[in-house]
Amino acid sequence: MSRFDTYFLMKTEDVAEYVQEKLSFFPEDAKLESKEIGDGNLNYVFRVKDVETGKSIIVKQADEALRISAEMKISKDRGRIEAKILGIQGKYAPGLVPEVYLYDGVMCALTMQDMVGHTMMRTGLINHEIYPLFAEHISTFLVNSLLLTTDVVMGHKEKKEYVKSFINPDLCEISEDLVYSEPFIDYNHRNNVFPANKEFVQKELYDDKILHLEAAKCKFDFMNNAQALIHGDLHTGSIFINKEHTYIFDPEFAFYAPMGYDIGNVIANMFFAWCNGDATMEDSTEKEEFCGWTLDTIEEIVDQFIAKFKVSFRENVTDTMAKTEGFMEWYLDSILRDTAAVAGFESIRRTVGMANVKDITGISDEKKRARAERIIITLAKDYILNRETSFRSGADYRDAIQKAIAKF
Amino acid sequence: MSRFDTYFLMKTEDVAEYVQEKLSFFPEDAKLESKEIGDGNLNYVFRVKDVETGKSIIVKQADEALRISAEMKISKDRGRIEAKILGIQGKYAPGLVPEVYLYDGVMCALTMQDMVGHTMMRTGLINHEIYPLFAEHISTFLVNSLLLTTDVVMGHKEKKEYVKSFINPDLCEISEDLVYSEPFIDYNHRNNVFPANKEFVQKELYDDKILHLEAAKCKFDFMNNAQALIHGDLHTGSIFINKEHTYIFDPEFAFYAPMGYDIGNVIANMFFAWCNGDATMEDSTEKEEFCGWTLDTIEEIVDQFIAKFKVSFRENVTDTMAKTEGFMEWYLDSILRDTAAVAGFESIRRTVGMANVKDITGISDEKKRARAERIIITLAKDYILNRETSFRSGADYRDAIQKAIAKF
Repeated sequence: MSRFDTYFLMKTEDVAEYVQEKLSFFPEDAKLESKEIGDGNLNYVFRVKDVETGKSIIVKQADEALRISAEMKISKDRGRIEAKILGIQGKYAPGLVPEVYLYDGVMCALTMQDMVGHTMMRTGLINHEIYPLFAEHISTFLVNSLLLTTDVVMGHKEKKEYVKSFINPDLCEISEDLVYSEPFIDYNHRNNVFPANKEFVQKELYDDKILHLEAAKCKFDFMNNAQALIHGDLHTGSIFINKEHTYIFDPEFAFYAPMGYDIGNVIANMFFAWCNGDATMEDSTEKEEFCGWTLDTIEEIVDQFIAKFKVSFRENVTDTMAKTEGFMEWYLDSILRDTAAVAGFESIRRTVGMANVKDITGISDEKKRARAERIIITLAKDYILNRETSFRSGADYRDAIQKAIAKF
Repeated sequence: MSRFDTYFLMKTEDVAEYVQEKLSFFPEDAKLESKEIGDGNLNYVFRVKDVETGKSIIVKQADEALRISAEMKISKDRGRIEAKILGIQGKYAPGLVPEVYLYDGVMCALTMQDMVGHTMMRTGLINHEIYPLFAEHISTFLVNSLLLTTDVVMGHKEKKEYVKSFINPDLCEISEDLVYSEPFIDYNHRNNVFPANKEFVQKELYDDKILHLEAAKCKFDFMNNAQALIHGDLHTGSIFINKEHTYIFDPEFAFYAPMGYDIGNVIANMFFAWCNGDATMEDSTEKEEFCGWTLDTIEEIVDQFIAKFKVSFRENVTDTMAKTEGFMEWYLDSILRDTAAVAGFESIRRTVGMANVKDITGISDEKKRARAERIIITLAKDYILNRETSFRSGADYRDAIQKAIAKF
């Protein structure tokens, strides 16, 4: 019998004992120190560290109640999904996700590699750090974790078992509401609209019925199109990074959906970094360097995704009909269309929706923040409304971004 | 202990005892008579009848090996899916599916209402029977069973549980191969091409790379787009009918997929009836009446589906974004596009694929059969290749059919 045989919400002082009981990661007589380090919305995250060797491990425990909002209760089972997804992503994109040591279904706790020497990417970006290899790493992660889990590549029966296994009603509901509905029709009165942009948001988002229709179309595609095993929440807060290396984690929103969802999220969040740099950096050389890098990175992510996708498709395609001449181009085209749309939805929802990002809320100059948000919303509408005809290369993104910036 | 506590494949002489042990449908001392009546490919179907009262019941038992082909082994679990689906369809489209009395997971047997006084529709159509209420009944069934199981109407969490529950890898694989792949690329060498049409099929199907590309696109939509709980095998062999009434049954291929799949199947199979009538009926007045009715029915199915869909959508829509102006029209448009494509795929695969239909194989005059098949294939290609721009009303179908007929 152990006190960890029944679920309870651990406090900092419980976690070291828990790790020692469950794993032989640390020596039995190690002096361990624990700390709560979470800043996500769905879990309690602890670091347990051996004071003498500095070796450490992470324990992530799910609470039944979402920390962000008591009204949204989420199944504790999501840790099981996360552990399985990290295993799959680790198989397809080795070295780009942290290692999982244990998933404990009783305590709803995931014990995993501590990504020492890495910073949460959003924090790094707000400090205007440059990560020269990010486009290279994330484009590999995207192609491998997405294309290899489709039925273009995977056996159709195995893929269907995956679809079934990763149906994720609770977390999907959050995205359906927060990404595809509330930013356009604030029926739950949870949007956070920056006062200086109240009228702008009213006109550009709440009153634009054509935009609502496009959002509705994309919402149903997001809900129904079981294309690939997506991460589902691939913003810069789900990435730990340094100059040499990148880890993608926190895949608890994962399910089968259009791949463009992940790619679009990365693109939108990279542009938030541009906005923060542009609005808050004082040294013009440094600003030029940082902001230039963010735009180069967006361009490279798109272009490297396309290039690596084509190579991987040709190498890995198994479905007979998918080998038909012209299919790869059509399929990639549809992915790029979805990518643009999602870049738009993520941009909008992080600006006016319930869950905002520090890149933008951290701009203390009111005028500059208002301008940044207007650029984001204008660009986002371009992404959504012109997704069918534009946004097929990195250069298309750069052009659209420059056009949106020039308007304000 | 009972001998029905362990699975075995029942013979005719076992079934009456089975029914008496499991149900109180017949009096204890009833004199029962059993008969195997199946002609499907996946099950043994028995009728058990009370000799004195004439009252009867159906028992459908699944064999582990498909009867059509030993190489395709199918999970015995499909009876569970069928029983659940009949329950759901019966709830949404009351009176249009047979009643289920028992599903027995041990014996993999489904005991259900005997649709006395009804004929298998394909048999009736081959006898050139007219069913004046069919368009009315089937359009109601289609709208109710399909629209009401989408996330336009159903709670998103409940719908996802349905999606999960009805993932159907074994039977989907059959459709993916037989409908969307082999008719175009005969890589399993199972196609049945009528010798007189060998060259025609080579040129029009096997060599048409543009058609292959469209088939590939539609195949991935069929596999990935979890739009509605479709029947999945809605040909005229899955319908029991008489002049007043219609039952839809055999939903063992059911899963979440584009609704157009069911509608397109019905349309394609109604046209097979036209072909049979046109090629085999001698009395020209009777031929005109029967063939005219088949075309009227195709037209009415499409138009009544559209009309009832619009009424039901407005009455039942719950999703906030789906209420956006223009969404219903866009959604319906995409359904009609899918319908046309599937009418094409079903037409082609029943003509040249492994599983043919008696409406066509029963045309004994070689020239007439060859002509019928050429009309079907020509029409089918029109459906598939022009699905984006045409086929938005019953009249569009009538026009296309008349154009295809006029060519041969």
